[in-house]
Amino acid sequence: MKNAKENLESLFNPKSIAMVGVSKTPGKLGHEVMNNLLKCGFRGPIYPISHRYSEVQDIRCYRSVLDVTDEIDLAVVSAPESYVPKILEELGAKGVRSAIILSGRRMSPLKEVISEVSRKHGMRILGPSSLGVYYPKHKINASPIPLSGEGRGIALISESKTLGMSMIDFGISEGLEFSAVVGTGGKADVEERDLLNYLSEDDDTRSIMIHMETLGDQKKLIEAIKDALRKKPIIIVTGSSEIRKKLEPLRKEIPITTDFIAAFDIAAAFLGKKITGKRALVISNSSGAGNLLVESLEDTSLEIPPLSDAFIDDTRIFMPEGSRHGNPLDLTPEASPDIFRGILESSANSSEIDLIILIYCGMDPENLEKFQTMLLEMSDLTDKPVISVFLGGDLSREVARKLRKEGIPSYVNIANVGKALDFASRYFESYRNI
Amino acid sequence: MKNAKENLESLFNPKSIAMVGVSKTPGKLGHEVMNNLLKCGFRGPIYPISHRYSEVQDIRCYRSVLDVTDEIDLAVVSAPESYVPKILEELGAKGVRSAIILSGRRMSPLKEVISEVSRKHGMRILGPSSLGVYYPKHKINASPIPLSGEGRGIALISESKTLGMSMIDFGISEGLEFSAVVGTGGKADVEERDLLNYLSEDDDTRSIMIHMETLGDQKKLIEAIKDALRKKPIIIVTGSSEIRKKLEPLRKEIPITTDFIAAFDIAAAFLGKKITGKRALVISNSSGAGNLLVESLEDTSLEIPPLSDAFIDDTRIFMPEGSRHGNPLDLTPEASPDIFRGILESSANSSEIDLIILIYCGMDPENLEKFQTMLLEMSDLTDKPVISVFLGGDLSREVARKLRKEGIPSYVNIANVGKALDFASRYFESYRNI
Repeated sequence: MKNAKENLESLFNPKSIAMVGVSKTPGKLGHEVMNNLLKCGFRGPIYPISHRYSEVQDIRCYRSVLDVTDEIDLAVVSAPESYVPKILEELGAKGVRSAIILSGRRMSPLKEVISEVSRKHGMRILGPSSLGVYYPKHKINASPIPLSGEGRGIALISESKTLGMSMIDFGISEGLEFSAVVGTGGKADVEERDLLNYLSEDDDTRSIMIHMETLGDQKKLIEAIKDALRKKPIIIVTGSSEIRKKLEPLRKEIPITTDFIAAFDIAAAFLGKKITGKRALVISNSSGAGNLLVESLEDTSLEIPPLSDAFIDDTRIFMPEGSRHGNPLDLTPEASPDIFRGILESSANSSEIDLIILIYCGMDPENLEKFQTMLLEMSDLTDKPVISVFLGGDLSREVARKLRKEGIPSYVNIANVGKALDFASRYFESYRNI
Repeated sequence: MKNAKENLESLFNPKSIAMVGVSKTPGKLGHEVMNNLLKCGFRGPIYPISHRYSEVQDIRCYRSVLDVTDEIDLAVVSAPESYVPKILEELGAKGVRSAIILSGRRMSPLKEVISEVSRKHGMRILGPSSLGVYYPKHKINASPIPLSGEGRGIALISESKTLGMSMIDFGISEGLEFSAVVGTGGKADVEERDLLNYLSEDDDTRSIMIHMETLGDQKKLIEAIKDALRKKPIIIVTGSSEIRKKLEPLRKEIPITTDFIAAFDIAAAFLGKKITGKRALVISNSSGAGNLLVESLEDTSLEIPPLSDAFIDDTRIFMPEGSRHGNPLDLTPEASPDIFRGILESSANSSEIDLIILIYCGMDPENLEKFQTMLLEMSDLTDKPVISVFLGGDLSREVARKLRKEGIPSYVNIANVGKALDFASRYFESYRNI
């Protein structure tokens, strides 16, 4: 019964929610989560459950889920650990379909209680110590995560609460968006494989990132990953050498890394168009930067093919004096955004290349803005993926962030470009029908 | 004659400067460089040389260096390439001691003219296509680089102008400072080995970073690097596979990378105290983050020793409920900056460990500020290097940037921490008397 999609429907698409252990104290988990639930636009009823308060934020509190007459699809529990067994019993008695246990530690004895209740009542339970669930598609934010509104892009499954929050904070600062966040915590019942099954069907999800520290059933997980890979790319972040070893059979198919910055940069490669081939055209306004990129592609499956005479002839009129007419195309520091535009226009439909990587070095705000506008316009005019790399400080980062929000894979970290495009191109090669 | 320190003294410590090819048009190189020269606080006379203007910024222009009666130590040339041979001839005739040729391309025929003039007149010449020289110690900014004031930290030697500027922009945005920037450009005369010789003696320089694309005399360069390494750590950024191969004999002693972000993170390890051993204590408020770091240290020379019972007993009183009393020490998400302080105080003088790595996950501005204050205070109280890692978005980056400015090696990129500390600890092991 553990792998049916309907099985998790009450977790991701509940019709009603009970919030057990609400608080009126800002900063407390029971306050933050209640707040997020109310703010995220959930349309069904939310029932606060509290022994202490008769109302929170003008909403009537119930002493127990058993006092609620309506059916409850999802219960979110942030009560102190010692109360949780009794609460779980009541959730079971009430026939609640799923629960998120935010309380406790991952290794807590709660795990056994949760397993038992789950088995006995067929309830799907996340946790203990779950970060919660953020799922903007169904306007759910049953978590302390400061996210809101529509989200497309990354579905993050995180075992760690604290690291998960840091990863989300980092992802936002890099212009990325989340289609879902799910905290697995102690994984007493719901595990990565259940979530992969559900989230791989999600249209708003471009890639699935998993942080994990412990492995359940190795074989079943590998099977679930292989299954989900047919629908979505998967990236694993782990600090466990055991997991690295045990997932070894997947090493060619998915990145498994300790470097979550690289993981997000890899996810960014799935913001844009499908990469349908390996032949990259590299265009830069600095030969030094172009060479760094090309050299860093050395160990990847990407190719930097020589350009034909016809190609060079077509682009020649745009090239400033002193340009290098090869691949990488070095346009010299004098190259304006309009010169990049000309080259893009003339190469957009070339059959010699499959993707275009632009590298822009520059600190002038006006030029950076023009470059950004040019890229947005050009990206609509070509079927080829256009990837941009901005080398520099805060302003470069800002432009890359903005372009990512517009669906253009953009980078400031030249060393991750190869990792990202290599994985993305290999992924689309294996799963052409995605 | 090429390796005497005095030889480059006129370049880095001139008594008078001529600026050949000044411009009154903002944005033009001859305007920006003249502006920087005037702004940087240089105390000697600056002689603008121009065929076009009789004055710039209220300073009288001369038509030629030959018209200046005073001696000229350094000439900065930003005139169009075709004028440069005649200008060089006049510099030679005038007895100018050194020159920076900003004009031209790196592969320009100017290279031969420069070599000849340098040989004939014993003039030391940077360029063609040099990014210029920024050397705050002697209040020189003969470059378009937007830097000013005192600078301690990194001496950057860059072959590329455009990439060099981007690297500086990036470095500034990461809270790093530059003790010197020198653009080698086409290297007709002055090469990396001359500059290594000079800059390795510089007290304000903590590390030397070199971007290079072409290699001169392989043997002499390796010799110069080995020499300079006795005084300063060196990091090479290159997109040339040939250079990687030819510098292979140095691979164990210096990082050679395409990843300039990693290069700057490595340089940041030299901001703080000497690392005198390999045994690291890792303290975090997230076991997930602690594990990522420990796992990423796997391929380095650093050790994460088990802690003695005595050590654990001493720190136990500070640890929140649910802490993991091992190495990494997991203080749980509830750990306040004061709890970190307690652990630091009790471990600061332990003979079991050589350095301390703190990992902080958190987005609360108040806690981040308290953490920052705590770190600054504690860093003064212990002889052990304290390295901090902040995982998260913009605010984490901001705190790391501020701490770097105060001399505490701080990181947001967990994957570079191992690279940086591994190199730094091996460096200080090889060169104990630095």
